[in-house]
Amino acid sequence: MSEKSHQIVLASRPKGAPVPENFRLEAVAMPAPGAGEVLIRNRFLSVDPYMRGRMNDAKSYVPPFQIGQPLEGGAVGEVVTANDPSLKPGDWVLHNAGWREWALLPAAGAQKIDAAIVPPSAYLGVLGMPGLTAWAGLNKVGLAQPGETVFVSGAAGAVGSLVGQLAKVKGCTAIGSAGGPDKVAWLTDELGFDGAFDYRTEDPVQALGRLAPKGIDVYFENVGGPQFDAALINMKLHGRVAVCGMIAQYNATEPPEGSRAIMLVVPKRINIRGFIVVDYWQHLPEFLAEVAPLVATGKIKFRETVYEGIENTPDAFLALFKGANTGKMVVKL
Amino acid sequence: MSEKSHQIVLASRPKGAPVPENFRLEAVAMPAPGAGEVLIRNRFLSVDPYMRGRMNDAKSYVPPFQIGQPLEGGAVGEVVTANDPSLKPGDWVLHNAGWREWALLPAAGAQKIDAAIVPPSAYLGVLGMPGLTAWAGLNKVGLAQPGETVFVSGAAGAVGSLVGQLAKVKGCTAIGSAGGPDKVAWLTDELGFDGAFDYRTEDPVQALGRLAPKGIDVYFENVGGPQFDAALINMKLHGRVAVCGMIAQYNATEPPEGSRAIMLVVPKRINIRGFIVVDYWQHLPEFLAEVAPLVATGKIKFRETVYEGIENTPDAFLALFKGANTGKMVVKL
Repeated sequence: MSEKSHQIVLASRPKGAPVPENFRLEAVAMPAPGAGEVLIRNRFLSVDPYMRGRMNDAKSYVPPFQIGQPLEGGAVGEVVTANDPSLKPGDWVLHNAGWREWALLPAAGAQKIDAAIVPPSAYLGVLGMPGLTAWAGLNKVGLAQPGETVFVSGAAGAVGSLVGQLAKVKGCTAIGSAGGPDKVAWLTDELGFDGAFDYRTEDPVQALGRLAPKGIDVYFENVGGPQFDAALINMKLHGRVAVCGMIAQYNATEPPEGSRAIMLVVPKRINIRGFIVVDYWQHLPEFLAEVAPLVATGKIKFRETVYEGIENTPDAFLALFKGANTGKMVVKL
Repeated sequence: MSEKSHQIVLASRPKGAPVPENFRLEAVAMPAPGAGEVLIRNRFLSVDPYMRGRMNDAKSYVPPFQIGQPLEGGAVGEVVTANDPSLKPGDWVLHNAGWREWALLPAAGAQKIDAAIVPPSAYLGVLGMPGLTAWAGLNKVGLAQPGETVFVSGAAGAVGSLVGQLAKVKGCTAIGSAGGPDKVAWLTDELGFDGAFDYRTEDPVQALGRLAPKGIDVYFENVGGPQFDAALINMKLHGRVAVCGMIAQYNATEPPEGSRAIMLVVPKRINIRGFIVVDYWQHLPEFLAEVAPLVATGKIKFRETVYEGIENTPDAFLALFKGANTGKMVVKL
């Protein structure tokens, strides 16, 4: 085969916010599958905020990306060659060898998905890692109960938009924050949030006082910064904070300003728990059994922001930090 | 009876650090017990950091002290008149009508204590509210397990000194911080802490790296500020923070600098829980059954800093914020 496979490699490590020069498009020889391997034509690539962490040369819960090597991330594609009886050509699979046109993997590294009931790209978002993140953070970390008030920041993102909808399905009041009037309107008018505010134009302490006058039971934290303190200030006794991420701080080169309201955990007996979705993989079947039918029937809505072409994958990633996405950011090949 | 009872009233609300002018000594008529009431001659009064919060006119978990009214707090004394069959003259009791020489209470508000096995003042400290705070924070909030490493700040205080000793009894490694070489030496040489450092002279991030090179499992938080972040930075995966108080911030008039390391709760899956001892009163019998014998036999040591005379109660309270106490601060009448 003389065809080439294109991929994105890490050209240099970002200092602060990533820039296009940190990435490079490369053409490499088409990979040839050996015994037990499958060759996959990637159709959708995922870009996610957590990938920023792996671009630093720092010890973390996953090893850092290496300079000159292709980046990794969730992807769905079609099997073209399968040297393993568990898969056959034409199967749709979910795997982690993204940022490239063609993926070569041991068969065990590719998980077959049902692309008939929902579009395959949904397995990168609402039914994939972001979806499980939302479900686990709400139920297993935040311990949300029917009748409680749930606030989620970054509510127009892939994780946040599902948090609010799952909270509504559960019988909670759902409050969200997002950047810009269009996103805010989407939350309340389309997704059924009980209230939403634009963190760019309204002080979050006041906004939460207005939208949740009796206080918040569960805060699903996606962004960090002033909204974290605003949530603590507006929290009820025995409130819970599920900390999924703090995207506002991912690119910081100076230490962030810090939480000044942290002392409130004492009088309010607040429980703050950080979590990572990989610790909840064992709940994936339970999550899919509950949420896939809700997605298939349209009861849970999701939106995607779609960039096209392998060469635009870095731009799609950079756009995450500018809040350019509504719902899951994916790249269509 | 022409004798007067002296008491300390709140003269004005502190702005920032309390000053002597916030308090006033008053002489009032001796209270006369009615039916079902007891008259108690107070022998030891407790002053505790949490009282600072009640001096603000702010909604909190306990109502604020009122200007012109006597302050309240733990006290032990001897029953002089008992118009109730549950108590008799000469009984030692623990109650909450401190900051005064004579206390008049419904009999149900006074709890009989056994002053034969330990000195009565111990019921204000190691066997009282601070003791239960240490025990509950370590066991019920921090969920310390044998073999784990426990770090406690404010380790020479009434709560902290017990946290470390209880951790040792449990089979943990105990690390403490305190202000000044004498206190640090007391922790390691007398109380059996495995390591201790002087937060005034050593950077807490470096000190914890030195004393707990494999990291901390449980942080018992008494002080706030840089030690909070230092603990997060030195924490193991799945570490727990039991937040008892943040004395460094109680007198702040400006917002405190804030925690800049809070984002570490995500990759380390840290659980931060604020707690208040009143939520754990139901464990008092369990606590006393476990700890009183350890105190009576000298296996658990405690120290008191004793001021004398009702008129010096405000000074004893003010001294708490200068770290002038080793162990429990009490006022002997």
